[in-house]
Amino acid sequence: LLDQRKLPGQLEYFDATSFDDLCFAIKEMIVRGAPSIGVAAAFGFAIEAARLSHMLKAENLLKLLPSIKEKLDNTRPTAVNLHWATDRLLAAAVALLSEPITSDDFRSRTLSLAQEIFDEHIQTNCKISSTGATLVKQNASIITHCNAGPLAVCGWGTALGIIRFAHFAVLNPHVYVDETRPRNQGAKLTMWELAQDKVAATLICDNMSGYLMSSRKVDMVITGADRIATNGDSANKIGTYNLAVVAKYHSVPFYIAAPLSTFDAVAKTGGDIPIEERDSIEVTHIEGKSITAQGVCALNPAFDVTPAQLIDGIVTEVGILRPPYLASIAAAFGQSTFVRQQNENIQYMK
Amino acid sequence: LLDQRKLPGQLEYFDATSFDDLCFAIKEMIVRGAPSIGVAAAFGFAIEAARLSHMLKAENLLKLLPSIKEKLDNTRPTAVNLHWATDRLLAAAVALLSEPITSDDFRSRTLSLAQEIFDEHIQTNCKISSTGATLVKQNASIITHCNAGPLAVCGWGTALGIIRFAHFAVLNPHVYVDETRPRNQGAKLTMWELAQDKVAATLICDNMSGYLMSSRKVDMVITGADRIATNGDSANKIGTYNLAVVAKYHSVPFYIAAPLSTFDAVAKTGGDIPIEERDSIEVTHIEGKSITAQGVCALNPAFDVTPAQLIDGIVTEVGILRPPYLASIAAAFGQSTFVRQQNENIQYMK
Repeated sequence: LLDQRKLPGQLEYFDATSFDDLCFAIKEMIVRGAPSIGVAAAFGFAIEAARLSHMLKAENLLKLLPSIKEKLDNTRPTAVNLHWATDRLLAAAVALLSEPITSDDFRSRTLSLAQEIFDEHIQTNCKISSTGATLVKQNASIITHCNAGPLAVCGWGTALGIIRFAHFAVLNPHVYVDETRPRNQGAKLTMWELAQDKVAATLICDNMSGYLMSSRKVDMVITGADRIATNGDSANKIGTYNLAVVAKYHSVPFYIAAPLSTFDAVAKTGGDIPIEERDSIEVTHIEGKSITAQGVCALNPAFDVTPAQLIDGIVTEVGILRPPYLASIAAAFGQSTFVRQQNENIQYMK
Repeated sequence: LLDQRKLPGQLEYFDATSFDDLCFAIKEMIVRGAPSIGVAAAFGFAIEAARLSHMLKAENLLKLLPSIKEKLDNTRPTAVNLHWATDRLLAAAVALLSEPITSDDFRSRTLSLAQEIFDEHIQTNCKISSTGATLVKQNASIITHCNAGPLAVCGWGTALGIIRFAHFAVLNPHVYVDETRPRNQGAKLTMWELAQDKVAATLICDNMSGYLMSSRKVDMVITGADRIATNGDSANKIGTYNLAVVAKYHSVPFYIAAPLSTFDAVAKTGGDIPIEERDSIEVTHIEGKSITAQGVCALNPAFDVTPAQLIDGIVTEVGILRPPYLASIAAAFGQSTFVRQQNENIQYMK
């Protein structure tokens, strides 16, 4: 895993060779971004289940599988792609163990499924990127928040995938990148990724979007999402909600880009999405140095929920979903290949 | 001058004994906050005019006085209190020189006026603080942005003066303080000032206000201002506008607290207020360390304009001004003592 905590200063890789390594990498945000976390968790599940299959009988392994999922699910509570990935691995592993199988076969089958999830993400993001790019006008000025590029989501990226696709399609987009306090993923990762592709980009503080929209041309806002409820309410990095409110006030279209694995069929509204609270030291310190008085209290919710009424469209691999989202999301899942694929995977594993 | 760049880590004083020292102190934000800048500029003008009066004839000094004002006015272009203070000093100095006066008398009279402006600010802020505190409910939860406490405005403070007054009136306010990127005045100065008085305070990132208003009780927002147009449009630290838009979306009352010296009779709307653009290094670096990729472009407007329609009231030393502001601001100046006082000062100098 490219250690995202150390970018853009250092290009260092973290060798995650064990289950504990992967849990640590997700929790500590060595790997981050909802889809990337999902892929990492899939490999984490496969590695651990395979390791245990060499030591345990099938019936005992079956009893332990839910705890592997649980440990992974608890590393980051908000992103649902993680649960989606561990659900798929758990179902597949249970199916495999329902009939006699060698531990080597079990290992190769579970690792294959993790790899398949990885490959699916790359394909999915390519579809999201090309579909979303149809929303981008020539010379568009775009604001994005946090990081939804290749590092976060594998392959093209989602929100950043759309921008990169528009760039390579010679639409000449200019991107204003929110630095994304407190962890500065916009400043550190998005600016770095855009520089790799030579996309025109300007760093701004999260509080400058209103100034920008009132004084310069801003054509659209695009961000990723970490979990989307069935009514379209979308959890994403803290600050996305403020940006969406400011965009609405200026009648600037606000789009979310996310794969269907980001949707949570159980969450009816944003109120059903748990919001991770992280250590306040992320707010009080930057690069290990205090930016405030000693001993102060700080709040550090990692995400917020943007209500559906502020979202003009959700770009997915099956098209751009539009309000009313209850209907368009349901329809997307009806026609989606991923539910079918998931069933096929389980079938194939059997 | 208490060096505000070094707080809260170090309590260091900067000796500004010359005109150039004072210009440097304002430009480099050793002293900051619109009213404090005004007071510093008043002393700067007095020191320089007095120094020159010992070397030049009255007629030659008269020719040089406008350039003293111009140099001071150019240190920070947005805060109007600075112009207001240098206008007063210039008018008084011109009046003094219209009749024979010794250079010692000239020196003591101009320094007296600077001291008077200082004393006025302290009285003014006391009135603003006690008046504004009538808006604060018992156990109120308040968001503030940047720093409008004693460091910024002399004496009680304006926005923070109201909060401090409410605290000492045992109204038990709880303050959420925006860190205020890019210079973190909220994290560095406001949190430090609130800690001195033991006011309950929680540091947040600028992008968390929407999360806070949608998930917890927030009763009001109060900020200071750097320049207010005659229609009520208010320039204040970058991010104030975003906060006001988010407050409006949640129907949370948004108040400005500022002395009448912050109003610009020449600016009809916010569009007439110049916005200072500062070095992009303030955005790309924190405490001298880069937080982004090498060579990136960054935008750094120091202020934004909150339109009058987002402001529920402007707390001044002559009362709380309410919409429509064109009328209430005109009325405030009609009844204000400061215009009269200004004329009296000039009269007195004569």
